[in-house]
Amino acid sequence: MINPNLSELRAAARRIAPFVHRTPILTSRTIDTRIGARVYFKCENLQKTGAFKIRGATNAVFLLSERHASKGVATHSSGNHGAALAQAACWRGIKATVVMPQNAPEFKKHAVVNYGADIVFCEPTLKAREETLAEIIQKTDAVFIHPSNDSRVIAGQATAALEILAEIADLDVLLVPIGGGGLISGTALATHWIAPHTRVFGTEPANADDAYQTFKTGQIVRIQKPQSIADGLLTSLGTVTYPIIKSFVADIVTVSEEQIIAAMRCIWDTMKLIVEPSAAVPLGALLSHQIDVTGKRVGIILSGGNVDLDRLPW
Amino acid sequence: MINPNLSELRAAARRIAPFVHRTPILTSRTIDTRIGARVYFKCENLQKTGAFKIRGATNAVFLLSERHASKGVATHSSGNHGAALAQAACWRGIKATVVMPQNAPEFKKHAVVNYGADIVFCEPTLKAREETLAEIIQKTDAVFIHPSNDSRVIAGQATAALEILAEIADLDVLLVPIGGGGLISGTALATHWIAPHTRVFGTEPANADDAYQTFKTGQIVRIQKPQSIADGLLTSLGTVTYPIIKSFVADIVTVSEEQIIAAMRCIWDTMKLIVEPSAAVPLGALLSHQIDVTGKRVGIILSGGNVDLDRLPW
Repeated sequence: MINPNLSELRAAARRIAPFVHRTPILTSRTIDTRIGARVYFKCENLQKTGAFKIRGATNAVFLLSERHASKGVATHSSGNHGAALAQAACWRGIKATVVMPQNAPEFKKHAVVNYGADIVFCEPTLKAREETLAEIIQKTDAVFIHPSNDSRVIAGQATAALEILAEIADLDVLLVPIGGGGLISGTALATHWIAPHTRVFGTEPANADDAYQTFKTGQIVRIQKPQSIADGLLTSLGTVTYPIIKSFVADIVTVSEEQIIAAMRCIWDTMKLIVEPSAAVPLGALLSHQIDVTGKRVGIILSGGNVDLDRLPW
Repeated sequence: MINPNLSELRAAARRIAPFVHRTPILTSRTIDTRIGARVYFKCENLQKTGAFKIRGATNAVFLLSERHASKGVATHSSGNHGAALAQAACWRGIKATVVMPQNAPEFKKHAVVNYGADIVFCEPTLKAREETLAEIIQKTDAVFIHPSNDSRVIAGQATAALEILAEIADLDVLLVPIGGGGLISGTALATHWIAPHTRVFGTEPANADDAYQTFKTGQIVRIQKPQSIADGLLTSLGTVTYPIIKSFVADIVTVSEEQIIAAMRCIWDTMKLIVEPSAAVPLGALLSHQIDVTGKRVGIILSGGNVDLDRLPW
């Protein structure tokens, strides 16, 4: 039995609809010509909190029973999931606590505080994050909402794919970035059920290719301190996401740092959209010919747009 | 008799529909809260060639008879109209010549060449532009398509307002930037006919407030060498645009350079949209309380997104 199932995905879509944007799907003739394909960009960078993460966080938070919700929610995240959980908790009127490394960028701390969550700082290691979070949960009984390895979160992330597959018929391939695997798991499940002929590809920084290695070896690989400009994609697959990816993803390809930056710049210049490096990885895979899509209909989920405008990589 | 009339605007919408994007209308709860109003942003920065100008240029080019079109089109423009006319001429399969000052930014020259037009360089004065253009027209019999002071162009620009007024009911006010007045003329006419209770405001850099002065004095004012970061708004009203603005625009307000940059940064940070300084002027007017819109429903046309990403004003 596949978890979450199609009716859970549809329920997630109904549950979060009052809160999130139905984001536009945009095209660029210039990019189509360059790639030799028709490319549809699902603009989750224009989503509330600036990333698709609000879908999963909102679904998870509103699935909680009154009793569980009353204790609040908690997570560790240096990025978009922290801000998303803060916003979702605010909508439900409950407390959120986000564990962040001390060295997280100021603008990301600002976003989490802005949506009304408490930040607890820790050392910038996975061990410190997990221990600090465990202490908080011990103390407060808050519900842990994992950034990706949680079927409620995956069901929420799947709703972006439900929307693009409903609006754009006959996609040959659908490309998403892979970090912890929440987005690609949801995307692969949604596609499996409603567009089984569409192939889902994961795209990952070559400098943080744990999902690629996991997919090829069958063992969950964790990379110590991966370094990539795609700072949303540094986490590893988990016990919930990996089996889904193994079963329903066509392939995973990797993209160099240079190609990520070039793709990001291409989207900014050509489409006038602010996307963060992680969101540019799928286009980077196409521009560097990692996947042959010539003459095909291609969907890309632009996963987010949270980038420090004072520190651009060009 | 008002020129262009409603049926000409509707015809323009049908004529250009196969070529241009129907751009999305986006909202931001963060900006709404800050302004105290509900603000709808019509995203012409996401339009083909990166600006609303493609609407007017396409309408004008496709209105030409075969005989006139065969001679090609020409204009003087240091910016978005040049690129738009180049693209429209390319779609029709005719020649375009664009007179540009030698000191125009490289990325703007690149856009015009990219869409297949010839550039003829001139000294950076209005006189040199007009004389150089006159010579070209003398030599080639090309049709001059003015960037704003032309009812075919105005009818095209009006189609952005037709779209926002059709999608968003009961706007109290609609704000647009003013340069040569083509966009605001089209917007004011469309609004006059299909949403007569909506008030149209022009917003202009205080450093290039010729339209403001013209509106207040009743005499067409030209400013010698205006200096503003809003480089799309440095031109003056004309004999076609001014009478329309005089009759159908509620008021014109001015915005400081600092307020323009702050509004531009706000749109980039909050909405993840790349807008050029000119497009940020209407929001600048709201953030600096030039127009009281408390509790109202406000439309803003984000006019364009063509900005040199290597030279941002922060």
